[in-house]
Amino acid sequence: MKRNILVAHGGGPTTVINASLFGVIDEAMRQSSSGKVFGAIHGVEGVLNDELIELSSQDQKQLVLLPYTPASAIGSCRRKLTDADYPRILEVLKKHDIGCFFYNGGNDSMDTCNKIAKLAEASGYDLAVIGIPKTIDNDLALTDHCPGYGSAARFIANNTRDLWMEVRAMPMYVTIMETMGRNAGWLTAAGSIPDYDGKPCAQLVYLPEYAFDENAFLADVDNLLHKQREILIVVSEGLADENGKMIADLGIVDGFGHKLAGGAAQALCDKVTARLGVRARAERHGFLGRCSMIMQSAQDREEAIAVGRHAVRLAFSGHTGLMAAIRRDSDHPYAWSLTEVPLENVANLERKFPLEWINQGRNGITDEFRAYALPLIGEPLPPYAVLSGR
Amino acid sequence: MKRNILVAHGGGPTTVINASLFGVIDEAMRQSSSGKVFGAIHGVEGVLNDELIELSSQDQKQLVLLPYTPASAIGSCRRKLTDADYPRILEVLKKHDIGCFFYNGGNDSMDTCNKIAKLAEASGYDLAVIGIPKTIDNDLALTDHCPGYGSAARFIANNTRDLWMEVRAMPMYVTIMETMGRNAGWLTAAGSIPDYDGKPCAQLVYLPEYAFDENAFLADVDNLLHKQREILIVVSEGLADENGKMIADLGIVDGFGHKLAGGAAQALCDKVTARLGVRARAERHGFLGRCSMIMQSAQDREEAIAVGRHAVRLAFSGHTGLMAAIRRDSDHPYAWSLTEVPLENVANLERKFPLEWINQGRNGITDEFRAYALPLIGEPLPPYAVLSGR
Repeated sequence: MKRNILVAHGGGPTTVINASLFGVIDEAMRQSSSGKVFGAIHGVEGVLNDELIELSSQDQKQLVLLPYTPASAIGSCRRKLTDADYPRILEVLKKHDIGCFFYNGGNDSMDTCNKIAKLAEASGYDLAVIGIPKTIDNDLALTDHCPGYGSAARFIANNTRDLWMEVRAMPMYVTIMETMGRNAGWLTAAGSIPDYDGKPCAQLVYLPEYAFDENAFLADVDNLLHKQREILIVVSEGLADENGKMIADLGIVDGFGHKLAGGAAQALCDKVTARLGVRARAERHGFLGRCSMIMQSAQDREEAIAVGRHAVRLAFSGHTGLMAAIRRDSDHPYAWSLTEVPLENVANLERKFPLEWINQGRNGITDEFRAYALPLIGEPLPPYAVLSGR
Repeated sequence: MKRNILVAHGGGPTTVINASLFGVIDEAMRQSSSGKVFGAIHGVEGVLNDELIELSSQDQKQLVLLPYTPASAIGSCRRKLTDADYPRILEVLKKHDIGCFFYNGGNDSMDTCNKIAKLAEASGYDLAVIGIPKTIDNDLALTDHCPGYGSAARFIANNTRDLWMEVRAMPMYVTIMETMGRNAGWLTAAGSIPDYDGKPCAQLVYLPEYAFDENAFLADVDNLLHKQREILIVVSEGLADENGKMIADLGIVDGFGHKLAGGAAQALCDKVTARLGVRARAERHGFLGRCSMIMQSAQDREEAIAVGRHAVRLAFSGHTGLMAAIRRDSDHPYAWSLTEVPLENVANLERKFPLEWINQGRNGITDEFRAYALPLIGEPLPPYAVLSGR
């Protein structure tokens, strides 16, 4: 008997979550034992409200565009499920005779996924539950990296270089660029990737893994100002002091109880101006950092499709309670393969940026990170003109 | 006797100002009567400080990359010249036997350019002075549009669409995106260009040409909220009330005495939350709006190179006191040609967005603008998947 498939997205979208969606749909449609493929509108909200759309009957011309379409084509949400919600989830799955449930998200979503798998098992409902990793933050455990990270890192690397071109053309301000990545510095570190004319485009980079030391920061900037007018600094939106207080606290809490971050660059600009007496300008690229399609990394897209396909193959070969994952086989040349890990080993864990990849001054990143990140951001950034004497 | 050439950049850079620079250098090197080509480091500051670099002797491999390099390869500045500065300018030009001076900038720069032309003439110094138009704001008079605008408009059109994909995927906030364009709405209007699934990606667009009416704005948002959760609004950074007070006054004045704009989106988000009780989120893309190379419009690049070449040809055919300009010959198919206008007719004028291209509700843009702008932003944005039932 052919049973149906349900896919849902959880948390903030990326430029490649639709690529994984395409991987799931396309792979499922190749399985002779697969029924219809449904998508939940706006993630678990769509499941709770029984709002599903059929994906397997969509126009193929539209489906093949999914890997080139940002954000989530079926919608996502940040709703944290309560214990009371889980039975309703199972009820809707049963109603549509769902035999495989694929949940594409970050660590919160993998926790949800794991709970659904356990509940189905305890209830004797035959359900394969497979998680598909997704997060621009790259903070999921037990996978070399997450689909979504390479593209978001490419966005940051590219913007850091473009902003550096702007800063050196007209050095009127100390420029501080803020990146997403509340608790883990993977995204911020991408600001350390680009070079121009043999020098890093960002002179100082501050990650949230260390408590932010305002005096050390101001001393770093002051030292630089004695050498050059052109200064570009990259910081995490989540920088916090030794007491864990974010340097820019918006006072907003999301659906999972996490504090919203943002405004760190502006807060630091204010300090630079007040304490060092120079003009400073904040750059913050907001949601564009996760939905800028033109910054999609082709490598990221390819891997995102592959983890979607892998999730389907795992489910159809009788597995459940797993997350599809990526293993790195080699840096040079970059080689990767697909693997899988138990959901319960991933759920709610947060993988921080390795401290050994942060320099001694805690204001820069080592070359080991570049070796890790360069293959993920995709093809090299195109060259810019270098004029001698400038 | 072969006399030398000097090029300088004024004001904020664009992604195609280096394309015009390439046009000047390449065309000058084809003129048998041309001497060396110099560039002023950081615009008129470089002239005043006698800091020039030779451009005609640079590695050709680097020169051909100029049209693909954002910001200004020779540097720019925002210094407003005083009467006392002009004799020094002439002194430096004489020292280097400059016979042609090309100044690439916006309306302030065209004023400077005009004054230098007049001073040279009054002093009996044989100098051809030609302005090259450049501004992302598109507010220069007597040219159909300015090099730099098409690429910045492409950036805004593209981001509006990407943000719309994000907003509809996870409609947690009323999203308000702020664009550059302090006094003229050309850039903001670019937010009205993209469609998705047959509907405009931005539901409301507010330009600075009309006094901003807070109550009308809140009524517009409230009306929309009764119909849909997904809302994307595009506003100019320079929105001001009927008394000319900017809705977000940073209290900073630039080198030309113009007030710096910025923060309008956040100010409006605060009002939406306070008055309508819904969450709102501001997006502001800062300097990236003028230095994002990947958003360069190929049409814009081609025209920028051409106006640079045209400026050289004008100077070498005995003209001075002119600005190279672009004439539109046809919308469908788009056709353009090169022309020129007297600098004194352009200097310090500001061309606003036509009021007849703003809708009756003052919250949207008419199709006439799309016909004007579409050819300038270059090749069509790539298609995104549309799923039926979403």
